[in-house]
Amino acid sequence: MKAILLLSGGLDSTTTLYYAIGKGYQCHALIFDYGQKHRKEIRYAVAAAKRVSVAYRVVQIKLPWKGSSLLDPRHKKKAKGIPPTYVPARNTIFLSFALSYAEAIGAEAIFYGANAIDYSGYPDCRPEFVRAFQNLIKAGARDCGIKVSAPLIKKTKAQIVQLAKKLGVPIDKTWSCYEGSAKPCGVCDSCKLREKGLKG
Amino acid sequence: MKAILLLSGGLDSTTTLYYAIGKGYQCHALIFDYGQKHRKEIRYAVAAAKRVSVAYRVVQIKLPWKGSSLLDPRHKKKAKGIPPTYVPARNTIFLSFALSYAEAIGAEAIFYGANAIDYSGYPDCRPEFVRAFQNLIKAGARDCGIKVSAPLIKKTKAQIVQLAKKLGVPIDKTWSCYEGSAKPCGVCDSCKLREKGLKG
Repeated sequence: MKAILLLSGGLDSTTTLYYAIGKGYQCHALIFDYGQKHRKEIRYAVAAAKRVSVAYRVVQIKLPWKGSSLLDPRHKKKAKGIPPTYVPARNTIFLSFALSYAEAIGAEAIFYGANAIDYSGYPDCRPEFVRAFQNLIKAGARDCGIKVSAPLIKKTKAQIVQLAKKLGVPIDKTWSCYEGSAKPCGVCDSCKLREKGLKG
Repeated sequence: MKAILLLSGGLDSTTTLYYAIGKGYQCHALIFDYGQKHRKEIRYAVAAAKRVSVAYRVVQIKLPWKGSSLLDPRHKKKAKGIPPTYVPARNTIFLSFALSYAEAIGAEAIFYGANAIDYSGYPDCRPEFVRAFQNLIKAGARDCGIKVSAPLIKKTKAQIVQLAKKLGVPIDKTWSCYEGSAKPCGVCDSCKLREKGLKG
């Protein structure tokens, strides 16, 4: 029972990795090098995959148009209530690659660590997006039975931390900060949400 | 009124380009270098964009898992009635990049030259896939009003050739063959469908 798992090296996707393994899936982690300023997370993602001995691929993507503060520090524009860290259609691109990978190796599921409770308000982290991607697979994939699973989507960050601890995730070996400096900045959305979860 | 247009350099996407321009859109062509053996088409796509003076981007994608005869000549497996030229989730990936580009530059539409009448049977060329991608945009894009337009989807190849002639598309300057040799092979699905259209 193979599964593709989007792995960023952060708390959520690493917890999802442990969750999927616990469900008996033979996971194939998909890691993206997409020009993110916190490319340090890639190292954490690779280490996480190695730690639990799952296969992984690092795929390079270049978005020439940027449009996000994660890709271009000059980008500061908040649009429609969505923060400037939103990368245009990034998660749609990631899931499309996951679908491609799943079809190529005959995987049955795609695991996606999105969360729509304690989150930054990205539209592509919500249940309706996951459902729409599932419908897209049904309508237009060759292997239209591939399931998208987002087990954290309705959990609070505190619940995710609890789950991570229960599953034995080494939380201190995950990287969430958008800055990618030596230490977490403590002020970006991602740091704040993580901190909130850790406080419980 | 900006639009993103997926441009392969073939008859269908080039006709769609002329169609979109005729509808008054300021087109931005998106061309993919994805390891296709007929990479010759990229040159045709770039030439097509230049001929009508539209902006274009060539995006490089590497699918490490192949899974298609267009990427790996050893792949010959037909699955679920779908020919081995099918590239796993390729068009989903292409449309995801188009969505990203559209959000980044504030485009209102994405033009997609898919066709589900005289076609190879790819699931991601059918109206239900286009509708599902439209629903995905509604559910999970920041700019959820972006429209996906597939004006050729229900036309026969002969009707596409008629439209191309009416719009002044230089048909002999489009490239459809999957082989990418000096001359079209005449036997691949793409050559056969093109020939069918030209015969009327």
